[in-house]
Amino acid sequence: MTDTPLDVVGIGNAIVDVLVHADDGFLDAHALTKGAMTLIDEARAGSLYADMGPGVEMSGGSAANTMAGLAAMGGRAAFIGKVRDDQLGAVFADDIRAAGVRFDTPPAADGAPTARCLVVVTPDAQRTMGTFLGASVELGPDDVDDDLVAAAQITYLEGYLWDPPGAKQAFRKAQRIAHANGRRVALSLSDPFCVERHRAEFAELVAAHVDILFANEAEITSLYEVDSFDAALQQVRGHCEVAALTRSEKGSVVVRGGEVHVVDAHPVDAVIDTTGAGDLYAAGFLYGLTRGRGLAECARLGGVAAAEVIGHIGARAQADLSRLAASA
Amino acid sequence: MTDTPLDVVGIGNAIVDVLVHADDGFLDAHALTKGAMTLIDEARAGSLYADMGPGVEMSGGSAANTMAGLAAMGGRAAFIGKVRDDQLGAVFADDIRAAGVRFDTPPAADGAPTARCLVVVTPDAQRTMGTFLGASVELGPDDVDDDLVAAAQITYLEGYLWDPPGAKQAFRKAQRIAHANGRRVALSLSDPFCVERHRAEFAELVAAHVDILFANEAEITSLYEVDSFDAALQQVRGHCEVAALTRSEKGSVVVRGGEVHVVDAHPVDAVIDTTGAGDLYAAGFLYGLTRGRGLAECARLGGVAAAEVIGHIGARAQADLSRLAASA
Repeated sequence: MTDTPLDVVGIGNAIVDVLVHADDGFLDAHALTKGAMTLIDEARAGSLYADMGPGVEMSGGSAANTMAGLAAMGGRAAFIGKVRDDQLGAVFADDIRAAGVRFDTPPAADGAPTARCLVVVTPDAQRTMGTFLGASVELGPDDVDDDLVAAAQITYLEGYLWDPPGAKQAFRKAQRIAHANGRRVALSLSDPFCVERHRAEFAELVAAHVDILFANEAEITSLYEVDSFDAALQQVRGHCEVAALTRSEKGSVVVRGGEVHVVDAHPVDAVIDTTGAGDLYAAGFLYGLTRGRGLAECARLGGVAAAEVIGHIGARAQADLSRLAASA
Repeated sequence: MTDTPLDVVGIGNAIVDVLVHADDGFLDAHALTKGAMTLIDEARAGSLYADMGPGVEMSGGSAANTMAGLAAMGGRAAFIGKVRDDQLGAVFADDIRAAGVRFDTPPAADGAPTARCLVVVTPDAQRTMGTFLGASVELGPDDVDDDLVAAAQITYLEGYLWDPPGAKQAFRKAQRIAHANGRRVALSLSDPFCVERHRAEFAELVAAHVDILFANEAEITSLYEVDSFDAALQQVRGHCEVAALTRSEKGSVVVRGGEVHVVDAHPVDAVIDTTGAGDLYAAGFLYGLTRGRGLAECARLGGVAAAEVIGHIGARAQADLSRLAASA
């Protein structure tokens, strides 16, 4: 049994990011789709690393970023994800624990190395990702700690989990345990191409198994195959208890039954790197939600956290988010 | 009796615009509040005209612009407003009739000259207005043609009517006739400073006598004295049947009971002059509404019409709006 109550347990791919600055030509040369996440194999990862300039390594992973952000806001967070028992895996584990997130998933003793994501930041502050899933593919149902999920108010799952086959089973198991314990399940759609890869399953999940949905405009319009934000908004209403739809500089729209909030983006001096914007929005939002705040306030907190992370390089918060949230 | 059915009858100040280009220094020198409409007397109008460069005269007036736009989209529109029997008054009458709008209000035979509005367009495409109400103050209940109002699906009233005292009585009378005939009443809040001048009365109107409300973000937050768009949105829901809230480049948010639409702005190549943006949004929206279109489509049509008028100088449409609306 878990003795301390948890706000959120996040389940996702455990990834170390390698951030490099490059121009659009680099993306073209390596067939990376700008603004999106492309899955790459070990050989392609090797050729990308060989071609690029010096990078900065920092722990990443979408749900992991969200849990680190939640902890930085003062929330109680845990993370489930698979690294290898290699150097990068140790870095990932050290970082997320140092951020105040409980992380107990045992590392894989053999197989592929710890997952890494090459994050290319172009001069327009957009980020483009090439992910080698590595040890993430080893995540399976056995890694889902029943007590941890039962103890958390919300189980937060990233859509990217649908890419490695075993992780999908872990996702399904966590969702069942959460609901069996009267807890809520949140899903981030992760990426429009991820939605394209798994559209039918995601639509079924959202309609039947997800209580709280996070999606940006490209993801939600892809999910419902509609061509305007408003058309997607009309679709999602009633499909899950809460939907938080992010729109970059246009802010976010949050719906719960008949309740709809249209909340502005938090002002940012200069957008340096958009990596982690959606992850940190979810962190702020979940922080508010687990404290019983109103939806407009949850959206505001999400905006504050997202604004912090896009103001610097990297997908983990650097400033004191709990102080920012209180003063903003 | 009016023999032809009407879509909308608009009631407003009948004004001829004089458009000049000037920099922000001109606004400061003449104590004009940027982006807003300031009421000026005849003497101040004279000194402004003396100081400014050559201007372009074109018929204006907020509700009049909306009726001209509605006619340009293919709608059946009428206008009630007061000019003087002078040269500018004849220009106004000729222009609005040429636009296809029925206009029968008899001109004043004496008193102040036809109203004029000095529209200063600054290099950032913002417009700042100084209005001399002139003959508009002569508009009164007798000018409201009962049959015309009874024949129109919607009576559209501009908030600016609250400035000249007699016009307010005309407004009240039109609202009563419309409702007595099972018709709907629409109100545009016109300007945040206009809202400030008449806040209590506007709030009572919106709560009790208005079916369709048009307001931009500054106006609706001023009406409810709240500091965010979302807070205003929560207030306005349920206060009138339909509220269409415009947000410049952020598009518009439209609510009707539990129904909420968040609709993007129509793309514009270059914003030349924002004069008339709100007026033409209302035109497109009312065109859709009187044809039984869904609210999202009404908002889209409003966006198409607004995008046309901000792409050139002046507050009346120049392109074929009905064609634009069909193809957009």
